[in-house]
Amino acid sequence: EMAKSTQLLDNEALRAYATYATIVLLKMMLMSLITAYFRVTRKAFANPEDVAASFGKGEGAKKYLRTDQDVERVRRGHLNDLENIVPFLGIGLLYALSSPELSTALMHFRIFAGARICHTFAYLIPLPQPSRGLSWAVGYAVTISMAYKVLKTVLYL
Amino acid sequence: EMAKSTQLLDNEALRAYATYATIVLLKMMLMSLITAYFRVTRKAFANPEDVAASFGKGEGAKKYLRTDQDVERVRRGHLNDLENIVPFLGIGLLYALSSPELSTALMHFRIFAGARICHTFAYLIPLPQPSRGLSWAVGYAVTISMAYKVLKTVLYL
Amino acid sequence: EMAKSTQLLDNEALRAYATYATIVLLKMMLMSLITAYFRVTRKAFANPEDVAASFGKGEGAKKYLRTDQDVERVRRGHLNDLENIVPFLGIGLLYALSSPELSTALMHFRIFAGARICHTFAYLIPLPQPSRGLSWAVGYAVTISMAYKVLKTVLYL
Repeated sequence: EMAKSTQLLDNEALRAYATYATIVLLKMMLMSLITAYFRVTRKAFANPEDVAASFGKGEGAKKYLRTDQDVERVRRGHLNDLENIVPFLGIGLLYALSSPELSTALMHFRIFAGARICHTFAYLIPLPQPSRGLSWAVGYAVTISMAYKVLKTVLYL
Repeated sequence: EMAKSTQLLDNEALRAYATYATIVLLKMMLMSLITAYFRVTRKAFANPEDVAASFGKGEGAKKYLRTDQDVERVRRGHLNDLENIVPFLGIGLLYALSSPELSTALMHFRIFAGARICHTFAYLIPLPQPSRGLSWAVGYAVTISMAYKVLKTVLYL
Repeated sequence: EMAKSTQLLDNEALRAYATYATIVLLKMMLMSLITAYFRVTRKAFANPEDVAASFGKGEGAKKYLRTDQDVERVRRGHLNDLENIVPFLGIGLLYALSSPELSTALMHFRIFAGARICHTFAYLIPLPQPSRGLSWAVGYAVTISMAYKVLKTVLYL
Protein backbone atom coordinates (compact mmCIF):
# COMPACT_ATOMS: atom_id res chain seq x y z
CA GLU A 1 0.00 0.00 0.00
CA MET A 2 2.72 2.42 0.95
CA ALA A 3 4.69 1.36 -2.14
CA LYS A 4 1.69 2.26 -4.30
CA SER A 5 1.43 5.82 -3.04
CA THR A 6 5.10 6.55 -3.09
CA GLN A 7 5.83 5.15 -6.52
CA LEU A 8 4.90 8.68 -7.58
CA LEU A 9 8.58 9.48 -7.26
CA ASP A 10 9.44 6.70 -9.74
CA ASN A 11 8.36 9.16 -12.42
CA GLU A 12 11.47 10.85 -13.76
CA ALA A 13 9.86 14.26 -14.41
CA LEU A 14 8.64 14.28 -10.81
CA ARG A 15 12.08 13.28 -9.53
CA ALA A 16 13.58 16.15 -11.53
CA TYR A 17 10.96 18.52 -10.11
CA ALA A 18 11.68 17.27 -6.57
CA THR A 19 15.40 17.87 -7.07
CA TYR A 20 15.16 21.40 -8.48
CA ALA A 21 12.32 22.49 -6.18
CA THR A 22 14.44 21.44 -3.19
CA ILE A 23 17.49 23.28 -4.59
CA VAL A 24 15.67 26.58 -5.13
CA LEU A 25 13.99 26.32 -1.71
CA LEU A 26 17.37 25.73 -0.03
CA LYS A 27 18.72 28.73 -1.94
CA MET A 28 15.80 30.81 -0.69
CA MET A 29 16.38 29.61 2.89
CA LEU A 30 20.01 30.77 2.58
CA MET A 31 18.67 34.35 2.37
CA SER A 32 17.64 34.11 6.05
CA LEU A 33 21.23 33.33 7.06
CA ILE A 34 22.59 36.15 4.88
CA THR A 35 20.10 38.58 6.44
CA ALA A 36 21.19 37.50 9.93
CA TYR A 37 24.86 37.89 8.93
CA PHE A 38 24.29 41.48 7.73
CA ARG A 39 22.13 42.36 10.76
CA VAL A 40 24.96 41.28 13.09
CA THR A 41 27.91 42.76 11.13
CA ARG A 42 26.07 46.04 10.30
CA LYS A 43 24.56 46.17 13.82
CA ALA A 44 21.08 46.89 12.42
CA PHE A 45 18.21 45.12 14.17
CA ALA A 46 14.43 45.22 13.89
CA ASN A 47 13.46 44.14 17.42
CA PRO A 48 14.42 45.68 20.81
CA GLU A 49 14.86 42.18 22.29
CA ASP A 50 17.46 41.35 19.60
CA VAL A 51 19.45 44.47 20.49
CA ALA A 52 19.11 43.71 24.21
CA ALA A 53 20.61 40.24 23.72
CA SER A 54 23.90 41.76 22.48
CA PHE A 55 24.05 45.29 23.79
CA GLY A 56 21.83 45.41 26.89
CA LYS A 57 18.78 47.58 27.46
CA GLY A 58 20.46 50.96 28.03
CA GLU A 59 19.86 54.15 26.03
CA GLY A 60 23.12 53.58 24.12
CA ALA A 61 21.77 50.34 22.66
CA LYS A 62 18.82 52.04 20.94
CA LYS A 63 20.99 53.20 18.05
CA TYR A 64 21.21 49.60 16.79
CA LEU A 65 17.43 49.53 16.23
CA ARG A 66 17.66 50.84 12.69
CA THR A 67 17.46 49.94 9.02
CA ASP A 68 20.62 49.39 6.99
CA GLN A 69 20.92 49.45 3.20
CA ASP A 70 22.76 46.12 3.00
CA VAL A 71 20.21 44.38 5.22
CA GLU A 72 17.31 45.86 3.23
CA ARG A 73 18.91 44.71 -0.04
CA VAL A 74 19.06 41.08 1.15
CA ARG A 75 15.48 41.35 2.39
CA ARG A 76 14.29 42.62 -1.00
CA GLY A 77 16.07 39.66 -2.62
CA HIS A 78 14.40 37.28 -0.17
CA LEU A 79 10.94 38.71 -0.88
CA ASN A 80 11.59 38.53 -4.63
CA ASP A 81 12.45 34.84 -4.15
CA LEU A 82 9.13 34.27 -2.37
CA GLU A 83 7.22 36.07 -5.13
CA ASN A 84 8.82 33.94 -7.85
CA ILE A 85 9.58 30.59 -6.21
CA VAL A 86 6.03 30.13 -4.85
CA PRO A 87 4.59 30.17 -8.43
CA PHE A 88 7.38 27.79 -9.54
CA LEU A 89 6.55 25.37 -6.71
CA GLY A 90 2.84 25.24 -7.52
CA ILE A 91 2.93 25.44 -11.31
CA GLY A 92 6.07 23.25 -11.55
CA LEU A 93 4.45 20.43 -9.58
CA LEU A 94 1.34 20.47 -11.77
CA TYR A 95 3.55 20.68 -14.85
CA ALA A 96 5.55 17.63 -13.73
CA LEU A 97 2.25 15.75 -13.30
CA SER A 98 1.01 16.76 -16.78
CA SER A 99 3.18 14.19 -18.66
CA PRO A 100 5.77 16.58 -20.12
CA GLU A 101 8.64 15.30 -22.26
CA LEU A 102 11.40 14.52 -19.75
CA SER A 103 14.02 16.52 -21.67
CA THR A 104 11.69 19.53 -21.94
CA ALA A 105 10.85 19.35 -18.25
CA LEU A 106 14.53 19.15 -17.29
CA MET A 107 15.26 22.16 -19.47
CA HIS A 108 12.52 24.19 -17.72
CA PHE A 109 13.66 23.23 -14.22
CA ARG A 110 17.37 23.78 -14.92
CA ILE A 111 16.87 27.20 -16.51
CA PHE A 112 14.60 28.33 -13.67
CA ALA A 113 17.07 27.25 -10.98
CA GLY A 114 19.98 28.80 -12.87
CA ALA A 115 18.10 32.06 -13.38
CA ARG A 116 17.20 32.37 -9.69
CA ILE A 117 20.81 31.70 -8.63
CA CYS A 118 22.01 34.37 -11.09
CA HIS A 119 19.30 36.71 -9.74
CA THR A 120 20.66 36.31 -6.21
CA PHE A 121 24.25 37.08 -7.27
CA ALA A 122 23.05 40.05 -9.36
CA TYR A 123 21.10 41.41 -6.38
CA LEU A 124 23.69 40.89 -3.65
CA ILE A 125 26.96 41.86 -5.40
CA PRO A 126 25.18 44.00 -6.95
CA LEU A 127 25.79 43.69 -10.70
CA PRO A 128 24.76 46.60 -12.94
CA GLN A 129 21.35 46.33 -14.61
CA PRO A 130 20.00 44.65 -16.70
CA SER A 131 21.69 41.62 -15.03
CA ARG A 132 19.11 41.32 -12.27
CA GLY A 133 16.21 42.25 -14.55
CA LEU A 134 17.17 39.65 -17.15
CA SER A 135 17.66 36.81 -14.67
CA TRP A 136 14.28 37.68 -13.12
CA ALA A 137 12.62 37.71 -16.58
CA VAL A 138 14.08 34.32 -17.55
CA GLY A 139 12.67 32.65 -14.43
CA TYR A 140 9.34 34.41 -15.00
CA ALA A 141 9.16 33.26 -18.64
CA VAL A 142 9.94 29.64 -17.72
CA THR A 143 7.10 29.68 -15.18
CA ILE A 144 4.67 31.12 -17.76
CA SER A 145 5.73 28.42 -20.22
CA MET A 146 4.97 25.68 -17.67
CA ALA A 147 1.63 27.32 -16.79
CA TYR A 148 0.67 27.27 -20.46
CA LYS A 149 1.40 23.52 -20.67
CA VAL A 150 -0.58 22.86 -17.47
CA LEU A 151 -3.63 24.79 -18.65
CA LYS A 152 -3.47 23.18 -22.10
CA THR A 153 -3.37 19.70 -20.51
CA VAL A 154 -5.82 19.93 -17.60
CA LEU A 155 -8.13 22.91 -18.19
CA TYR A 156 -11.29 22.26 -16.16
CA LEU A 157 -13.13 25.45 -15.32
CA GLU B 1 5.14 3.42 -15.33
CA MET B 2 5.03 7.07 -16.26
CA ALA B 3 1.36 6.66 -17.14
CA LYS B 4 0.68 5.34 -13.66
CA SER B 5 2.17 8.33 -11.90
CA THR B 6 0.60 10.93 -14.08
CA GLN B 7 -2.88 9.49 -14.11
CA LEU B 8 -3.21 11.62 -10.97
CA LEU B 9 -4.45 14.37 -13.26
CA ASP B 10 -7.25 12.10 -14.56
CA ASN B 11 -9.03 12.95 -11.33
CA GLU B 12 -11.46 15.78 -12.06
CA ALA B 13 -11.15 17.50 -8.67
CA LEU B 14 -7.37 17.56 -9.14
CA ARG B 15 -7.75 18.92 -12.67
CA ALA B 16 -10.00 21.66 -11.33
CA TYR B 17 -7.45 22.42 -8.60
CA ALA B 18 -4.65 22.52 -11.19
CA THR B 19 -6.64 24.96 -13.31
CA TYR B 20 -7.58 27.39 -10.53
CA ALA B 21 -4.22 27.17 -8.74
CA THR B 22 -2.50 28.10 -12.01
CA ILE B 23 -4.93 30.98 -12.58
CA VAL B 24 -4.43 32.55 -9.14
CA LEU B 25 -0.65 32.10 -9.41
CA LEU B 26 -0.62 33.83 -12.81
CA LYS B 27 -2.73 36.61 -11.30
CA MET B 28 -0.21 36.93 -8.47
CA MET B 29 2.68 37.01 -10.95
CA LEU B 30 0.95 39.88 -12.75
CA MET B 31 1.56 42.00 -9.62
CA SER B 32 5.30 41.98 -10.41
CA LEU B 33 4.63 43.55 -13.81
CA ILE B 34 2.26 46.13 -12.31
CA THR B 35 4.90 47.03 -9.70
CA ALA B 36 7.50 47.46 -12.44
CA TYR B 37 5.07 49.61 -14.46
CA PHE B 38 4.46 51.96 -11.51
CA ARG B 39 8.17 52.09 -10.60
CA VAL B 40 8.99 53.26 -14.15
CA THR B 41 6.07 55.68 -14.64
CA ARG B 42 6.33 57.15 -11.08
CA LYS B 43 10.14 57.15 -11.27
CA ALA B 44 10.42 55.50 -7.83
CA PHE B 45 13.10 52.83 -7.47
CA ALA B 46 14.47 50.77 -4.59
CA ASN B 47 17.99 50.07 -5.89
CA PRO B 48 20.73 52.54 -6.97
CA GLU B 49 21.65 50.25 -9.91
CA ASP B 50 18.05 50.49 -11.21
CA VAL B 51 18.21 54.28 -11.16
CA ALA B 52 21.68 54.23 -12.78
CA ALA B 53 20.37 52.15 -15.70
CA SER B 54 17.94 54.95 -16.70
CA PHE B 55 19.30 58.16 -15.21
CA GLY B 56 23.04 57.63 -14.74
CA LYS B 57 24.99 57.84 -11.51
CA GLY B 58 25.04 61.61 -10.93
CA GLU B 59 23.68 63.44 -7.87
CA GLY B 60 20.55 64.39 -9.81
CA ALA B 61 19.58 60.74 -10.21
CA LYS B 62 19.40 60.12 -6.44
CA LYS B 63 15.95 61.68 -6.21
CA TYR B 64 14.48 58.64 -8.00
CA LEU B 65 15.58 56.39 -5.13
CA ARG B 66 12.37 56.86 -3.18
CA THR B 67 9.10 55.29 -2.15
CA ASP B 68 5.88 56.17 -3.96
CA GLN B 69 2.34 55.62 -2.68
CA ASP B 70 1.15 53.90 -5.88
CA VAL B 71 4.12 51.52 -5.92
CA GLU B 72 3.67 50.73 -2.21
CA ARG B 73 -0.04 50.01 -2.80
CA VAL B 74 0.74 47.40 -5.48
CA ARG B 75 3.40 45.89 -3.23
CA ARG B 76 0.94 45.57 -0.35
CA GLY B 77 -1.49 43.86 -2.73
CA HIS B 78 1.27 41.49 -3.87
CA LEU B 79 2.20 40.59 -0.27
CA ASN B 80 -1.47 40.05 0.58
CA ASP B 81 -1.64 37.64 -2.38
CA LEU B 82 1.33 35.69 -1.02
CA GLU B 83 -0.21 35.53 2.45
CA ASN B 84 -3.48 34.16 1.09
CA ILE B 85 -2.54 32.19 -2.04
CA VAL B 86 0.16 30.13 -0.28
CA PRO B 87 -2.45 28.64 2.13
CA PHE B 88 -4.80 28.05 -0.81
CA LEU B 89 -2.06 26.20 -2.74
CA GLY B 90 -1.21 23.87 0.16
CA ILE B 91 -4.65 23.32 1.66
CA GLY B 92 -6.35 23.24 -1.78
CA LEU B 93 -4.07 20.46 -3.04
CA LEU B 94 -4.71 18.34 0.06
CA TYR B 95 -8.44 19.09 -0.22
CA ALA B 96 -8.47 17.97 -3.87
CA LEU B 97 -6.79 14.71 -2.76
CA SER B 98 -9.33 14.13 0.03
CA SER B 99 -12.12 12.88 -2.32
CA PRO B 100 -14.39 15.93 -2.20
CA GLU B 101 -17.63 16.04 -4.21
CA LEU B 102 -16.59 17.46 -7.59
CA SER B 103 -19.31 20.14 -7.56
CA THR B 104 -18.37 21.23 -4.02
CA ALA B 105 -14.70 21.37 -4.94
CA LEU B 106 -15.41 23.44 -8.04
CA MET B 107 -17.48 25.85 -5.96
CA HIS B 108 -14.61 26.32 -3.49
CA PHE B 109 -12.01 26.88 -6.22
CA ARG B 110 -14.19 29.24 -8.27
CA ILE B 111 -15.19 31.38 -5.30
CA PHE B 112 -11.57 31.62 -4.10
CA ALA B 113 -10.27 32.66 -7.53
CA GLY B 114 -13.12 35.15 -7.98
CA ALA B 115 -12.57 36.63 -4.52
CA ARG B 116 -8.83 37.14 -5.12
CA ILE B 117 -9.45 38.81 -8.49
CA CYS B 118 -12.01 41.14 -6.84
CA HIS B 119 -9.49 41.81 -4.06
CA THR B 120 -6.90 42.96 -6.61
CA PHE B 121 -9.34 45.35 -8.32
CA ALA B 122 -10.54 46.66 -4.93
CA TYR B 123 -6.93 47.28 -3.88
CA LEU B 124 -5.60 48.84 -7.07
CA ILE B 125 -8.50 51.10 -8.16
CA PRO B 126 -9.01 51.51 -5.07
CA LEU B 127 -12.66 50.84 -4.24
CA PRO B 128 -14.05 52.17 -0.94
CA GLN B 129 -14.11 49.74 1.95
CA PRO B 130 -15.54 47.22 2.74
CA SER B 131 -14.94 46.02 -0.87
CA ARG B 132 -11.38 44.91 -0.25
CA GLY B 133 -12.13 43.61 3.23
CA LEU B 134 -15.05 41.51 2.02
CA SER B 135 -13.21 39.98 -0.93
CA TRP B 136 -10.32 39.12 1.41
CA ALA B 137 -12.75 37.53 3.92
CA VAL B 138 -14.46 35.40 1.26
CA GLY B 139 -11.14 33.89 0.11
CA TYR B 140 -10.13 33.37 3.74
CA ALA B 141 -13.41 31.59 4.58
CA VAL B 142 -13.13 29.30 1.54
CA THR B 143 -9.64 28.26 2.64
CA ILE B 144 -10.83 27.57 6.21
CA SER B 145 -13.68 25.46 4.80
CA MET B 146 -11.24 23.35 2.76
CA ALA B 147 -8.91 23.01 5.78
CA TYR B 148 -11.83 21.68 7.84
CA LYS B 149 -12.55 19.01 5.20
CA VAL B 150 -8.86 18.04 5.00
CA LEU B 151 -8.50 17.66 8.78
CA LYS B 152 -11.80 15.75 9.04
CA THR B 153 -10.62 13.33 6.32
CA VAL B 154 -6.95 12.74 7.09
CA LEU B 155 -6.28 13.77 10.71
CA TYR B 156 -3.14 11.90 11.82
CA LEU B 157 -1.38 13.65 14.68
CA GLU C 1 -10.69 5.96 -11.27
CA MET C 2 -11.24 8.63 -8.67
CA ALA C 3 -10.48 6.09 -5.95
CA LYS C 4 -7.14 5.35 -7.61
CA SER C 5 -6.00 8.94 -7.60
CA THR C 6 -7.08 9.75 -4.11
CA GLN C 7 -5.71 6.63 -2.44
CA LEU C 8 -2.62 8.82 -2.15
CA LEU C 9 -3.98 9.90 1.21
CA ASP C 10 -4.09 6.25 2.38
CA ASN C 11 -0.36 6.61 2.91
CA GLU C 12 0.21 7.39 6.59
CA ALA C 13 3.23 9.66 6.07
CA LEU C 14 1.20 11.70 3.60
CA ARG C 15 -1.75 11.87 6.01
CA ALA C 16 0.62 13.13 8.71
CA TYR C 17 2.04 15.69 6.28
CA ALA C 18 -1.49 16.81 5.32
CA THR C 19 -2.40 17.24 8.99
CA TYR C 20 0.67 19.25 10.03
CA ALA C 21 0.83 21.29 6.81
CA THR C 22 -2.79 22.34 7.37
CA ILE C 23 -2.08 23.20 11.02
CA VAL C 24 0.92 25.44 10.26
CA LEU C 25 -0.97 27.12 7.40
CA LEU C 26 -3.93 27.85 9.68
CA LYS C 27 -1.47 29.24 12.25
CA MET C 28 0.02 31.46 9.54
CA MET C 29 -3.45 32.62 8.47
CA LEU C 30 -4.14 33.61 12.08
CA MET C 31 -1.43 36.29 11.68
CA SER C 32 -3.77 38.19 9.30
CA LEU C 33 -6.44 38.40 12.01
CA ILE C 34 -3.89 39.49 14.64
CA THR C 35 -2.60 42.20 12.27
CA ALA C 36 -6.17 43.43 11.72
CA TYR C 37 -6.80 43.42 15.48
CA PHE C 38 -3.72 45.58 16.16
CA ARG C 39 -4.50 47.92 13.24
CA VAL C 40 -7.96 48.59 14.69
CA THR C 41 -6.99 48.84 18.38
CA ARG C 42 -3.80 50.88 17.70
CA LYS C 43 -5.59 52.96 15.04
CA ALA C 44 -2.73 52.48 12.57
CA PHE C 45 -3.73 51.88 8.95
CA ALA C 46 -1.85 51.54 5.67
CA ASN C 47 -4.58 52.68 3.23
CA PRO C 48 -6.56 55.97 3.13
CA GLU C 49 -9.75 54.03 2.23
CA ASP C 50 -9.38 51.96 5.45
CA VAL C 51 -9.14 55.14 7.53
CA ALA C 52 -12.09 56.67 5.66
CA ALA C 53 -14.29 53.68 6.50
CA SER C 54 -13.98 54.40 10.25
CA PHE C 55 -13.01 58.05 10.59
CA GLY C 56 -14.21 59.79 7.42
CA LYS C 57 -12.13 61.69 4.90
CA GLY C 58 -11.39 64.87 6.88
CA GLU C 59 -7.93 66.22 7.72
CA GLY C 60 -8.27 64.89 11.28
CA ALA C 61 -8.45 61.33 9.98
CA LYS C 62 -5.02 61.47 8.32
CA LYS C 63 -3.23 60.89 11.60
CA TYR C 64 -4.41 57.25 11.56
CA LEU C 65 -2.43 56.61 8.36
CA ARG C 66 0.72 55.61 10.18
CA THR C 67 2.95 52.72 11.20
CA ASP C 68 2.74 51.30 14.72
CA GLN C 69 5.37 49.16 16.45
CA ASP C 70 2.89 46.47 17.52
CA VAL C 71 1.43 46.17 14.00
CA GLU C 72 4.91 46.02 12.46
CA ARG C 73 5.91 43.29 14.91
CA VAL C 74 3.00 41.06 13.87
CA ARG C 75 3.78 41.76 10.21
CA ARG C 76 7.42 40.73 10.70
CA GLY C 77 6.19 37.51 12.32
CA HIS C 78 3.83 36.90 9.40
CA LEU C 79 6.61 37.41 6.84
CA ASN C 80 8.91 35.12 8.83
CA ASP C 81 6.16 32.48 8.66
CA LEU C 82 5.98 32.83 4.87
CA GLU C 83 9.77 32.55 4.57
CA ASN C 84 9.85 29.35 6.63
CA ILE C 85 6.50 27.65 6.00
CA VAL C 86 6.80 27.82 2.18
CA PRO C 87 9.99 25.67 2.26
CA PHE C 88 8.29 23.30 4.71
CA LEU C 89 5.27 22.93 2.40
CA GLY C 90 7.36 22.11 -0.67
CA ILE C 91 10.15 20.05 0.90
CA GLY C 92 7.78 18.36 3.38
CA LEU C 93 5.48 17.11 0.59
CA LEU C 94 8.41 15.68 -1.37
CA TYR C 95 9.80 14.18 1.85
CA ALA C 96 6.45 12.51 2.61
CA LEU C 97 6.52 11.02 -0.92
CA SER C 98 10.09 9.72 -0.50
CA SER C 99 9.08 6.69 1.65
CA PRO C 100 10.36 7.92 5.02
CA GLU C 101 9.95 5.83 8.17
CA LEU C 102 6.55 6.86 9.54
CA SER C 103 7.90 7.52 13.06
CA THR C 104 10.76 9.64 11.66
CA ALA C 105 8.38 11.59 9.45
CA LEU C 106 6.01 12.24 12.37
CA MET C 107 8.93 13.47 14.47
CA HIS C 108 9.96 15.94 11.75
CA PHE C 109 6.43 17.28 11.25
CA ARG C 110 5.65 17.55 14.98
CA ILE C 111 8.91 19.34 15.82
CA PHE C 112 8.46 21.78 12.91
CA ALA C 113 4.87 22.63 13.89
CA GLY C 114 5.85 22.98 17.57
CA ALA C 115 8.83 25.19 16.70
CA ARG C 116 6.73 27.56 14.56
CA ILE C 117 4.06 27.87 17.27
CA CYS C 118 6.79 28.67 19.84
CA HIS C 119 8.27 31.16 17.36
CA THR C 120 4.95 33.00 17.16
CA PHE C 121 4.60 33.25 20.95
CA ALA C 122 8.25 34.33 21.27
CA TYR C 123 7.70 37.05 18.65
CA LEU C 124 4.35 38.40 19.84
CA ILE C 125 4.74 38.39 23.65
CA PRO C 126 7.79 39.08 23.08
CA LEU C 127 10.05 36.68 24.98
CA PRO C 128 13.70 37.66 25.50
CA GLN C 129 16.18 36.23 23.02
CA PRO C 130 17.34 33.57 22.25
CA SER C 131 13.75 32.20 22.51
CA ARG C 132 12.72 33.40 19.07
CA GLY C 133 16.10 32.62 17.51
CA LEU C 134 16.12 29.08 18.84
CA SER C 135 12.56 28.25 17.76
CA TRP C 136 13.38 29.65 14.31
CA ALA C 137 16.57 27.54 14.14
CA VAL C 138 14.77 24.32 15.14
CA GLY C 139 12.22 24.70 12.33
CA TYR C 140 15.02 25.57 9.90
CA ALA C 141 17.06 22.50 10.90
CA VAL C 142 14.06 20.17 10.53
CA THR C 143 13.48 21.50 6.98
CA ILE C 144 17.18 21.00 6.07
CA SER C 145 16.99 17.43 7.42
CA MET C 146 13.96 16.67 5.21
CA ALA C 147 15.66 18.29 2.20
CA TYR C 148 18.68 16.03 2.73
CA LYS C 149 16.44 12.93 2.70
CA VAL C 150 14.63 14.13 -0.45
CA LEU C 151 17.85 14.81 -2.36
CA LYS C 152 19.37 11.48 -1.22
CA THR C 153 16.26 9.63 -2.44
CA VAL C 154 15.35 11.34 -5.71
CA LEU C 155 18.39 13.28 -6.97
CA TYR C 156 17.94 13.71 -10.72
CA LEU C 157 19.89 16.66 -12.06
